[in-house]
Amino acid sequence: MIAAAPQFRTIALVGKYQSPEVAEALQPLAAFLRAQGVRVLIEEGTAAAGAPDYSCPVASYETIGMEADVAIVIGGDGTMLHSARRLAEFDVPLVGINLGRLGFMTDISRNAMIDGVRDLLAGKFSAEQRLLLAAEVLRGGQRVFQTLAFNDVVVSKGDIGRMIELEVRVDGEFLYVLRADGMIVATPTGSTAYALSANGPILNPAVPGIALVPLCPHALSYRPITISDRSTVEFILLAPHDGAAHFDGQARFDTRAGDCVRIARAGPSVTLLHPPGYSYFAMLREKLHWSATPKH
Amino acid sequence: MIAAAPQFRTIALVGKYQSPEVAEALQPLAAFLRAQGVRVLIEEGTAAAGAPDYSCPVASYETIGMEADVAIVIGGDGTMLHSARRLAEFDVPLVGINLGRLGFMTDISRNAMIDGVRDLLAGKFSAEQRLLLAAEVLRGGQRVFQTLAFNDVVVSKGDIGRMIELEVRVDGEFLYVLRADGMIVATPTGSTAYALSANGPILNPAVPGIALVPLCPHALSYRPITISDRSTVEFILLAPHDGAAHFDGQARFDTRAGDCVRIARAGPSVTLLHPPGYSYFAMLREKLHWSATPKH
Amino acid sequence: MIAAAPQFRTIALVGKYQSPEVAEALQPLAAFLRAQGVRVLIEEGTAAAGAPDYSCPVASYETIGMEADVAIVIGGDGTMLHSARRLAEFDVPLVGINLGRLGFMTDISRNAMIDGVRDLLAGKFSAEQRLLLAAEVLRGGQRVFQTLAFNDVVVSKGDIGRMIELEVRVDGEFLYVLRADGMIVATPTGSTAYALSANGPILNPAVPGIALVPLCPHALSYRPITISDRSTVEFILLAPHDGAAHFDGQARFDTRAGDCVRIARAGPSVTLLHPPGYSYFAMLREKLHWSATPKH
Amino acid sequence: MIAAAPQFRTIALVGKYQSPEVAEALQPLAAFLRAQGVRVLIEEGTAAAGAPDYSCPVASYETIGMEADVAIVIGGDGTMLHSARRLAEFDVPLVGINLGRLGFMTDISRNAMIDGVRDLLAGKFSAEQRLLLAAEVLRGGQRVFQTLAFNDVVVSKGDIGRMIELEVRVDGEFLYVLRADGMIVATPTGSTAYALSANGPILNPAVPGIALVPLCPHALSYRPITISDRSTVEFILLAPHDGAAHFDGQARFDTRAGDCVRIARAGPSVTLLHPPGYSYFAMLREKLHWSATPKH
Repeated sequence: MIAAAPQFRTIALVGKYQSPEVAEALQPLAAFLRAQGVRVLIEEGTAAAGAPDYSCPVASYETIGMEADVAIVIGGDGTMLHSARRLAEFDVPLVGINLGRLGFMTDISRNAMIDGVRDLLAGKFSAEQRLLLAAEVLRGGQRVFQTLAFNDVVVSKGDIGRMIELEVRVDGEFLYVLRADGMIVATPTGSTAYALSANGPILNPAVPGIALVPLCPHALSYRPITISDRSTVEFILLAPHDGAAHFDGQARFDTRAGDCVRIARAGPSVTLLHPPGYSYFAMLREKLHWSATPKH
Repeated sequence: MIAAAPQFRTIALVGKYQSPEVAEALQPLAAFLRAQGVRVLIEEGTAAAGAPDYSCPVASYETIGMEADVAIVIGGDGTMLHSARRLAEFDVPLVGINLGRLGFMTDISRNAMIDGVRDLLAGKFSAEQRLLLAAEVLRGGQRVFQTLAFNDVVVSKGDIGRMIELEVRVDGEFLYVLRADGMIVATPTGSTAYALSANGPILNPAVPGIALVPLCPHALSYRPITISDRSTVEFILLAPHDGAAHFDGQARFDTRAGDCVRIARAGPSVTLLHPPGYSYFAMLREKLHWSATPKH
Repeated sequence: MIAAAPQFRTIALVGKYQSPEVAEALQPLAAFLRAQGVRVLIEEGTAAAGAPDYSCPVASYETIGMEADVAIVIGGDGTMLHSARRLAEFDVPLVGINLGRLGFMTDISRNAMIDGVRDLLAGKFSAEQRLLLAAEVLRGGQRVFQTLAFNDVVVSKGDIGRMIELEVRVDGEFLYVLRADGMIVATPTGSTAYALSANGPILNPAVPGIALVPLCPHALSYRPITISDRSTVEFILLAPHDGAAHFDGQARFDTRAGDCVRIARAGPSVTLLHPPGYSYFAMLREKLHWSATPKH
Repeated sequence: MIAAAPQFRTIALVGKYQSPEVAEALQPLAAFLRAQGVRVLIEEGTAAAGAPDYSCPVASYETIGMEADVAIVIGGDGTMLHSARRLAEFDVPLVGINLGRLGFMTDISRNAMIDGVRDLLAGKFSAEQRLLLAAEVLRGGQRVFQTLAFNDVVVSKGDIGRMIELEVRVDGEFLYVLRADGMIVATPTGSTAYALSANGPILNPAVPGIALVPLCPHALSYRPITISDRSTVEFILLAPHDGAAHFDGQARFDTRAGDCVRIARAGPSVTLLHPPGYSYFAMLREKLHWSATPKH
């Protein structure tokens, strides 16, 4: 699906923090964009890290959210996750450029960067919606924490060594009591990340589902379950276990026995813009070392 | 969800073939229904097997499909699969009664049979839509076989001992070449059957997805993938391997190298009617020996 | 294998700490043993916890190790692990009595306690050798920690959320670099504990092997490997990751990048004494819900 | 371990049947060996397939077994399996040369063939013992079939589609009744073959163990078990299921309900001769795409 050319008048550049390599890549990209008449914003954390002067306004995620028509993210999947979580509520589409190895979400290689961005400006791209999770922690009925996750929420004992015990409910109905190292709740995007290492199923992003993947469950019949993206899942931490909730491996909240971690699909989605010729399956083949060539 | 009382004027009874136990259970059920003024049809294969005279008209699946308002299936999950495949195109809802152990689809135990049917007549039940697969085999571009599957389609070498090689396409796009014992394509209903034994993911029936589960894949990174129920998956059997396609473990078609097995969601769905208090999760807990009691 | 009656002149009693239930069970056991002319020692931590006066000498693990002919352990598998680690160097055989559910190592139920101990005194038991692991942590070539483990050693990041990177060597030879949540090194005894939850293989205690089980490995082809019990395995923690080593889930050592955790079979073994009729397979069937009845 | 130079006076050459590539590789190898004063025997099936005249005596496996000091096998792992099974009782060491991709057992690449054989003649090699399985089928107490297996014995329904039911005994003791597609019994050598695809554990060849790996077990807690190589495992096929036993994927015996398939370590072992620098772990890294480079 190639969309008609949109007006990308303002483009934000977001880079992996503290990376000289990113700083080096940003300069020619910013110059190219300005030469095309595009207004360029540099995310402030990105700007702070890079020594060079980009001759562009520096902007917070909030300003980017309100003013940018698209954000180009240079780095790896971690940088994409961070940007997605920060920009989700503003519905700014993301384009991912990888500096090293191809990422699950950063489809454009550094070598193809300028060509990829030229295609983008010419409207040659496909747009894909990816679902996000909204998570909150309730204590004594009050919300004490909330955040978004693009890959996964992990509820665990925080520390390896002893099991955690969770009562799991889906749409208010009791599912089971889980004794395990923890539980991963993954989006289709996150199904190829940590959840895959824990024997979770791959969910094509076109599947409106959420995967529940137990981490080292004590009983052997606790298998991964995929539920509808319209369902709400809750974990009640059973005494005496405290624990922790992790969001995309980037944020953490220390939970206490009795807390309820509630997770559902977030209102906003993340829009990814892919270059012409992008293929989700081709990306999986590359990342997972699947056979690359049709034989028929 | 309790529906308003429908008019169940004609009810078909379908039983496991060659089972004296079923014959014994059918008699009082038929008598009870007739006493309520319901017209009762006995499926002809079921009638042939049972010695007793039910004093009811005997009917083919086609007649049942056209005349019955609901079919009550007495037996196990295998009988449900068979009935679902035969009646799917007629959109006759199914109710499952198990004679022995609780089944994944036969929710009403024999002891609760009369009460369950009384509830049904009183409109006390919940209705659930389950997706079916439509499968066809193409040879030289011509369709040489087609059928429906409620649980799964398995494409395999037919015989254990040597690998099969399949080129897999999703929506016409190359996914990969699979070298394995075979591939299971499972509905959410089938995700708790054979696919689960092969390490496939459980799909809640509310998830509109189809699971692709490789059987003993040669390469270790070929993990189960769930795709959208709007996708079409194709397997081309690569020479020199012949193979076989199995449908719900009930029908089989011997494939040849070069054949294409094409699978997509079928047009019709299966409607299951569940008794009051039915819970999918409670059924899973029972079948998979999960913890049964909330602690919180 | 029923051994000829040995002279069990001194028997130590060890119980789960802080457990009133244990205190209650110890009293009649101590009384029964003294009535048979046996000298009874109560482990000091056990005695401290229990209010009642056992009228027996209280002894440290060291004293028990030097003076007792057998130690009877009352509690669960955790108490057995603790006792095994403390008494291993003294070669005191262990007998396990479970207070609640059957344990993997506590074969005698509380109800059968007196009968079991009577059998023991009469020489009616079978003796089984189980291997132990000796682990040490090396920092800059110096040993900074050492201990024994009966179930497993787990090297991990200590905290869930980010991967650890380990260089793994077997008998000095490079095996691979592992990026994972961690690595479990399990004895046959430990193969049915935490390692089983992480998809590790069950090792019959008669197999002289050690299982290496990666925890959520980043790459999907890192499968569990069993090596000989004559091999030494080493993990070098690669910068920038610190981590932690856990021993039977009971001891912990915080490691630093560059540390080497070295694990090999310990010199001493653990001797378990089982009651007549004990069967390892029957115990597994019970614990893992395998079919219990031969059909043939 | 580099052995002292032995007297390899007679060397047999065995190749993959019907392979022009093998025929081409055999000629220079035979010529080189004869030039070194070695007596060369060509296995008769190998000779029959290749058009060229090797100017060497053609010999049966039996003759090779009695006369050859070593057998050089050119082909892939399948050819090694076949040769190992045929020559095991004669205790002829095997050297494996792969023609295409590196095999698990064929360590010498075609390019390094002459150098590898020169090293061999100079006594530069390491010898490794690998265990073999002896299998027999008993019907009504009479042995009706027997053979050897170097990788694995698979007892299955023969045909995919319905479960088989097996009563499993180890050393005469009931283990469990297995309902599954089948069961793999693998040697350490076979643990990296079919058993690995079925989630079996890798067994280092130094571990004297035998892996039992269920194929798609109906119940989720039936995990792979490794037993001692001194144990005997028996499978009784429970009615009404017939089935089949497969040996290294090369021989097959059709079993009937009531048959007993009995498997134990064979008396003879297979001796593999490896070139200088051979490493089992390096081979695994290559075959399983593990990280290749130490970082420390």
